[in-house]
Amino acid sequence: MVKDLYPSRVSNEVKMLERQDPVIHSEDAESKGPLTKEQLDFYEENGYLLLERFFENEILEILKEELEKTMEANKDREGPDVIKEPSSNEVRSIFEIHKDGDFFERLSTNERLVSIMEQILGSEVYINQSRINFKPGFKGKEFYWHSDFETWHVEDGMPRMRALSCSIVLTDNYEYNGPLMLVPGSHKYYVSTAGETPDNNFESSLQKQEVGVPDEESMRWLVDKADGRIDRATGPAGSVLLFDCNTMHGSAGNISPYPRSNVFFVYNSIKNQLEQPFSGKDPRPEFLANRENIQPIKATSELKSTVK
Amino acid sequence: MVKDLYPSRVSNEVKMLERQDPVIHSEDAESKGPLTKEQLDFYEENGYLLLERFFENEILEILKEELEKTMEANKDREGPDVIKEPSSNEVRSIFEIHKDGDFFERLSTNERLVSIMEQILGSEVYINQSRINFKPGFKGKEFYWHSDFETWHVEDGMPRMRALSCSIVLTDNYEYNGPLMLVPGSHKYYVSTAGETPDNNFESSLQKQEVGVPDEESMRWLVDKADGRIDRATGPAGSVLLFDCNTMHGSAGNISPYPRSNVFFVYNSIKNQLEQPFSGKDPRPEFLANRENIQPIKATSELKSTVK
Repeated sequence: MVKDLYPSRVSNEVKMLERQDPVIHSEDAESKGPLTKEQLDFYEENGYLLLERFFENEILEILKEELEKTMEANKDREGPDVIKEPSSNEVRSIFEIHKDGDFFERLSTNERLVSIMEQILGSEVYINQSRINFKPGFKGKEFYWHSDFETWHVEDGMPRMRALSCSIVLTDNYEYNGPLMLVPGSHKYYVSTAGETPDNNFESSLQKQEVGVPDEESMRWLVDKADGRIDRATGPAGSVLLFDCNTMHGSAGNISPYPRSNVFFVYNSIKNQLEQPFSGKDPRPEFLANRENIQPIKATSELKSTVK
Repeated sequence: MVKDLYPSRVSNEVKMLERQDPVIHSEDAESKGPLTKEQLDFYEENGYLLLERFFENEILEILKEELEKTMEANKDREGPDVIKEPSSNEVRSIFEIHKDGDFFERLSTNERLVSIMEQILGSEVYINQSRINFKPGFKGKEFYWHSDFETWHVEDGMPRMRALSCSIVLTDNYEYNGPLMLVPGSHKYYVSTAGETPDNNFESSLQKQEVGVPDEESMRWLVDKADGRIDRATGPAGSVLLFDCNTMHGSAGNISPYPRSNVFFVYNSIKNQLEQPFSGKDPRPEFLANRENIQPIKATSELKSTVK
């Protein structure tokens, strides 16, 4: 039996555990580029890094066109991988876009991105989950604090903290349109939460997560550890936000007129593939957590519009 | 019959009307102090003004003690003037604190505050509504965009735009704990909203306003007029925020650990007393809109703690 290094939802007791894994997994990472020593240090210390204007305007326009094309193509489709707003039935997220055999698949293998992931994760990588998100103006809902790794570990069987999220920001993120908020340094601790995982939890947790979220005392402790800091990922469209799989994050609702859209790839180390879920329950569906026919990404360079 | 200068909720049509009243009502206001020409100009242009650290630390500590004392005294009391969180039954607001015959009554007549209100409103003033607000950390709910004047006019019969809100901020307001957001310049326009006022609307609207809120197109127009600006009232505890009765404002939820508390006084010109509600419905209760035995405030100077 595999020892569970990061038990959670196993009792009614909350525990604050220390991280058992490095944050930067490459030996001598800075010599491997493309991130500089300063960027790597910031990521290691804070658990996230914002690369402003990573994509230039020309590519950004293509990204937006492709997002619209994909949203349009899916707006009347019903499926577990298409998530709609609880109240309005508008498309909010589309999952597994890295397997579209088209633009987003090539974007997910883009060599500028992949080389950064390999530098941080210290191995070849693959995509564990992907989606495009559209958070509308006026009625974007809040997402409460959570560590992605807690869910990926308990519900998907991800063994170690050797994955990261890459959010390609397609709209300007302001202080007032519900930007992602991150607790710097929170990735160094693991909140072992109380409670138990219901069957098919994912069917409701994608709209509102109820189990696996940290209790208020643990959140207060993490924010105190950060000297009261809660950072916001604000920046212009075309920026790329990287954050560690265990960084505590959330976002307030968005009552501003400005929508927020992004493309989201979760890169995992090829050495950290999914096992049986630590909850003992059935694994979540493939569109949420890839475990079949895993191959390391072969990087590609071309990013051309497919919109005529 | 009084002509309704600011009709709203009278049809299914939305209209954007121009303001019919000045923002600064005193002739030669700058000579009357205490606000400077720069402060008056900012208020006139933007519809709000933040006075940082208006109350010094010594007074701030007294304010906090008095707030706690009042919350504690009301926590088991049921009454229309005590508003609790929909989910948790915690006290969120207590109304009509300017009639407590005690600390908050003296605070509402504080001469430093009253002289500012008289300078802006150009006459003697009285309190139309007051409350203390406690917005807890982790679960503070959002408030959607609204103009206070729209409700005060339609539901309370306030004839003209000659009132302002004064929020005394008792906790630090950060970008990430749901600060008040204001659309600068929005006070120069009046969104005549669609729909009709239900009977006893206030019983639900204090928790979530459903009628009288602007439609998305009008909000977009107002934010565009402001060149996309949405300002946030962030600042240290002890600051005082003034905003015009017609400034469009709202706030996102608060998932941070930091609560937000404030004391809220609405000052109205003695020449702008309430008439019959323009909705044709019964007036709201006295604790929401004072209309009985109105007397101009006589300013007082002393602010001493009553907590032993």
